[in-house]
Amino acid sequence: MALSAIESFKVEDHVVVDTEKNNIQEHSETSKWVLSAPDPPTLWYQIVVSVRNSISHYQQWCSSLRGQHRAKVVLSFLTAIFPILDWGHNYTVTKFRNDLLAGLTIASLCIPQSIGYATLAKLDPEYGLYTSVVPPLIYAIMGTSREIAIGPVAVVSLLLSSMIQKLIDPVADPVGYRKLVFTATLFAGIFQAAFGLLRLGFFVDFLSHAAIVGFMAGAAIIIGLQQLKGLFGINHFTNNTDIISVMKSVWESVHHPWNPLNFVLGCSFFIFILLTRLLGKRNRKLYWLPAISPLISVILATVIVFVTRADKSGVNIVKHIKGGLNPISMNEIEFNSPHVGALAKIGLVVAIVALTESVSVGRSFASMKGYHLDGNKEMVSLGFMNIIGSFTSCYVATGSFSRTVVNFTAGCETLMSNIVMAVTVIISLLCLTKLLYFTPTAILASIILSALPGLIDINEGYKIWKTDKVDFLACIGAFFGVMFVSVEIGLLVAVAISFMKIIFLSIGPGIETLGKLPGTNMFCDVHQYPMAIKIPGVVIVRIKSSMLCFSNANSITERVTKWITEEETEGDKEDTRSIIQLVIIDASNLVSIDTSGIASLEKLHKNLVSSGKQLAIANPRWKVIYKLKTTNFVKRIGGRVFLTVGEAVESKLDC
Amino acid sequence: MALSAIESFKVEDHVVVDTEKNNIQEHSETSKWVLSAPDPPTLWYQIVVSVRNSISHYQQWCSSLRGQHRAKVVLSFLTAIFPILDWGHNYTVTKFRNDLLAGLTIASLCIPQSIGYATLAKLDPEYGLYTSVVPPLIYAIMGTSREIAIGPVAVVSLLLSSMIQKLIDPVADPVGYRKLVFTATLFAGIFQAAFGLLRLGFFVDFLSHAAIVGFMAGAAIIIGLQQLKGLFGINHFTNNTDIISVMKSVWESVHHPWNPLNFVLGCSFFIFILLTRLLGKRNRKLYWLPAISPLISVILATVIVFVTRADKSGVNIVKHIKGGLNPISMNEIEFNSPHVGALAKIGLVVAIVALTESVSVGRSFASMKGYHLDGNKEMVSLGFMNIIGSFTSCYVATGSFSRTVVNFTAGCETLMSNIVMAVTVIISLLCLTKLLYFTPTAILASIILSALPGLIDINEGYKIWKTDKVDFLACIGAFFGVMFVSVEIGLLVAVAISFMKIIFLSIGPGIETLGKLPGTNMFCDVHQYPMAIKIPGVVIVRIKSSMLCFSNANSITERVTKWITEEETEGDKEDTRSIIQLVIIDASNLVSIDTSGIASLEKLHKNLVSSGKQLAIANPRWKVIYKLKTTNFVKRIGGRVFLTVGEAVESKLDC
Repeated sequence: MALSAIESFKVEDHVVVDTEKNNIQEHSETSKWVLSAPDPPTLWYQIVVSVRNSISHYQQWCSSLRGQHRAKVVLSFLTAIFPILDWGHNYTVTKFRNDLLAGLTIASLCIPQSIGYATLAKLDPEYGLYTSVVPPLIYAIMGTSREIAIGPVAVVSLLLSSMIQKLIDPVADPVGYRKLVFTATLFAGIFQAAFGLLRLGFFVDFLSHAAIVGFMAGAAIIIGLQQLKGLFGINHFTNNTDIISVMKSVWESVHHPWNPLNFVLGCSFFIFILLTRLLGKRNRKLYWLPAISPLISVILATVIVFVTRADKSGVNIVKHIKGGLNPISMNEIEFNSPHVGALAKIGLVVAIVALTESVSVGRSFASMKGYHLDGNKEMVSLGFMNIIGSFTSCYVATGSFSRTVVNFTAGCETLMSNIVMAVTVIISLLCLTKLLYFTPTAILASIILSALPGLIDINEGYKIWKTDKVDFLACIGAFFGVMFVSVEIGLLVAVAISFMKIIFLSIGPGIETLGKLPGTNMFCDVHQYPMAIKIPGVVIVRIKSSMLCFSNANSITERVTKWITEEETEGDKEDTRSIIQLVIIDASNLVSIDTSGIASLEKLHKNLVSSGKQLAIANPRWKVIYKLKTTNFVKRIGGRVFLTVGEAVESKLDC
Repeated sequence: MALSAIESFKVEDHVVVDTEKNNIQEHSETSKWVLSAPDPPTLWYQIVVSVRNSISHYQQWCSSLRGQHRAKVVLSFLTAIFPILDWGHNYTVTKFRNDLLAGLTIASLCIPQSIGYATLAKLDPEYGLYTSVVPPLIYAIMGTSREIAIGPVAVVSLLLSSMIQKLIDPVADPVGYRKLVFTATLFAGIFQAAFGLLRLGFFVDFLSHAAIVGFMAGAAIIIGLQQLKGLFGINHFTNNTDIISVMKSVWESVHHPWNPLNFVLGCSFFIFILLTRLLGKRNRKLYWLPAISPLISVILATVIVFVTRADKSGVNIVKHIKGGLNPISMNEIEFNSPHVGALAKIGLVVAIVALTESVSVGRSFASMKGYHLDGNKEMVSLGFMNIIGSFTSCYVATGSFSRTVVNFTAGCETLMSNIVMAVTVIISLLCLTKLLYFTPTAILASIILSALPGLIDINEGYKIWKTDKVDFLACIGAFFGVMFVSVEIGLLVAVAISFMKIIFLSIGPGIETLGKLPGTNMFCDVHQYPMAIKIPGVVIVRIKSSMLCFSNANSITERVTKWITEEETEGDKEDTRSIIQLVIIDASNLVSIDTSGIASLEKLHKNLVSSGKQLAIANPRWKVIYKLKTTNFVKRIGGRVFLTVGEAVESKLDC
């Protein structure tokens, strides 16, 4: 605010500064070290370095190939892109036996889940199966994880349908809806690949762990509620996903005449699946039982309906599933659609959620098996898999949490299990789709329901509550946002709370007084270390933030001034030596300071000088001392900059 | 993401941890201090304390009155609310002579400015004069500053009109527009008073200094462009404020036949005002000349137009100004309007901008005269002044930058100068409005134009560029946002960039290696202190952020792992002792850590253990050590927590 105009009035201040200048003492060696530090790298230099680092990753890799035989270079290049060439080299029959078993197990879980998730994504059932064919194959040749099972997942299916159905009605215009889904899938793939190629993996970290726990739990409940449609055989179901709309929808349909057969069928197989899971937990050898129980349920229920022709008595069935391999969908991708901007946004959100699920599952298992998972490489693989998926009638696929656990438990060795799974799904698509005609939809609902408890992690929620209350707030915010508003709002709430926390913590105007620890030369927070002794006549203050900037500078300096007054009035009661002569700011925390921060320090200094006190800075960091030097603040405080608080305290005794 | 389900597989990890537990060494006294710190205050306790502090301010004040005579209590209470009772007590004739002079000087500047700013706010001229009557009087009895000159200001007038004209057309429905302006003024007043009463002064700090410099410069140019309408006598002028729309508007009107008389008149008096200002600067005794030159211009120009009847030749004139005192406008405030939500938002934005201008001007002059300005008390005064203003046909008033400087230069002693100014404006409203009939609008435009250069502070912009590049980005962002889009977008851009900077700095995954300063026991950044010596076999890392949280935890631990690998391979070339045995994390910066942060530290520890390295934590802060203890991380790393980096290094030598 045109402060330079005001500055022209500050004639008297300059006089103060001038008399001070003569007062600069000869400082110790260490103070000289502080003041003669080399200039820190400029912002521009930092940007250049960070770009160079991103590129150098590729350069290093290229230079490591130099001087080698051309065939070897090509091979090494291909191996880096397609790790299958590496592990395929040492592939053995024993490994294949394990992978075959694991692959068949996840296939038996994958087929009914894929059909169910396609319904959740408001697509025809075959699109779920298509998504379990191409993406796993692509990932198998590009991916670096060994356990991840690729395919459609519940949360991404729900997210996709809940966002795209706002643009177009999936019931009225299924073809148009499908086109938008493929376009969004392409965008998601492009974003994922771009994050990986540009080494922007940190984007995925923006969803905090707490937010994900809350989001997943909320999404699981929402997905469960969506299954009520299939379980009750309701025909008119709300398009909204929030709990209130859905319960209203269910309530209304209950008043209409409804067929309890769907419910009975669904529930009995739901109980069957839960029982097999219990058995599997009790007896580790029966691990395959819970994994194949969904398939058994589908077969049994289909046979029951076929034999009794229950579909005529009102049991809803899947009916026609289009057989055959994935049709090409390249011509269905629409860049000229008026919704292309919205689709890009949807693609971005879905890309981040899908990456979060896949990368966090992959990392957990990799650290368990003791190998390193390159996050950026993973993103590229997942991205390419979705790009090619969008050309072959697949919607967004990612690493499935439930199937990855089954894959690991079934003893998979490599990504071959994904290939086995994909081949099994291809065979089903070619030969078995007709057999699924009589599959009751209630069974699919109960299979999805049975996969949900794994997404709700109450233990983790409790752990978050115990460790960090604000984290828990983000968790609960995401949970209720998803439950009561919508999936996107839930995500947004979680991200917003996480960032609000960062802002509040970093701008928090907290300061703490330091005292000397007996027998050492350390100065520490007197509250954390009750044995610390305050130095009479000196106030030592440390800022509890890594920056002194516009948002906290004023409050901090005001608080320091208030403390000094309090210290002096308190001291008055006890003894007379309590007049504060020196105020030391321990700047060891401060990573950066901005123009407002420097301005407030100058104001503080002026106030102190006017009441006969001195200001000293201890242990300033690189950028901070640089800025204090360039703005002449160091000169103005008579060069009282010290390496340690102890030296600053001694300086008071000297004078 | 259901990590507890995964954890059931981590049997082998627990074995590692158990063998480690037996390994806990007997630590020194200082390590015990670190580990036995009392529990830090909980979040709930902190909230309670902060609320109590807000209240205790009032309680303290009440308790200080206890035991005193009732009349004295009432007087003390009244003095706190109305500081005029305090300074009015010691008011002398000498002081009044100075205040009278200063008051008349700012009145002569205020009358033409008020009329001009009312035009900028798209209100009739008399509303500007009304705003220079009631608010200064209220502020004079409630305010704590001694120099601030209250009244309408350019930026607030522009902001108000540019936001409210989106709701209603000021030309088509001037009465409805006025109602919305009064309602927005009431909201602004309520927000300002509420900020003060709830001690939320830090809200004003959210507009960083850099952002304000850019915003003010942009607004000044936009205001200047708006004056082209008056200067060229254009009748059809755009409602948009951005530079492109305005220049288009001007360009179109130039092609129509236009009257150069307005332009000639405006320019000649603009030059006259600038000349008097130059004279005033050269000769300090003529300080009153630039202050009254606007009034002289108005009088001269009015006389010229009246004598020559130039209005008949196309010179635009003010025409009728309604005389008489402020009419009551309480009945014009509309809470039932459909725009009430939008008006509340406008009120909030205007309140913050107005507070920023007034408080920063007030603080600058207070620190120059060496007295303390209570920000919260100021906000209450400004708030009440606007609340009462909205009941008496005033729009948002605040401390004017240009008139405050004049007030100070003219030698004002107390807020009496504001009272003198208000009385002068009352007299003009009662007797002189008829004389302003022939005042040409081009003169008002030139008066506003002449006040603008004070808002553009290129020196300060250069200073910001030199100190902090990102701050400068916020400054430039606000400037171009205001110039090319709209006033609100400019503000939004400035706030957004400022907060983005905070987020990027606080989540930045920066780490630095520490080395020992020769002859001391200090460990410092090896880049800042080139003389620092790295300890062989030990990597000492400090995190350049005050929190280890979801957004930076993964990247930081990944970077630490990478550094260790680099350190070992680099060392290999030189000597063989370079195998890293100990990794020390200097946690002295970390103010907080969240669940993701702890999880990533645990992963790092596991990785280190698997390659035979140890992890130690040095100097953890209060909340950090508390969380590391509650999550059992301290036990898991074998209790290797030390008070200083030095002790941590020694621990390696011991084992």
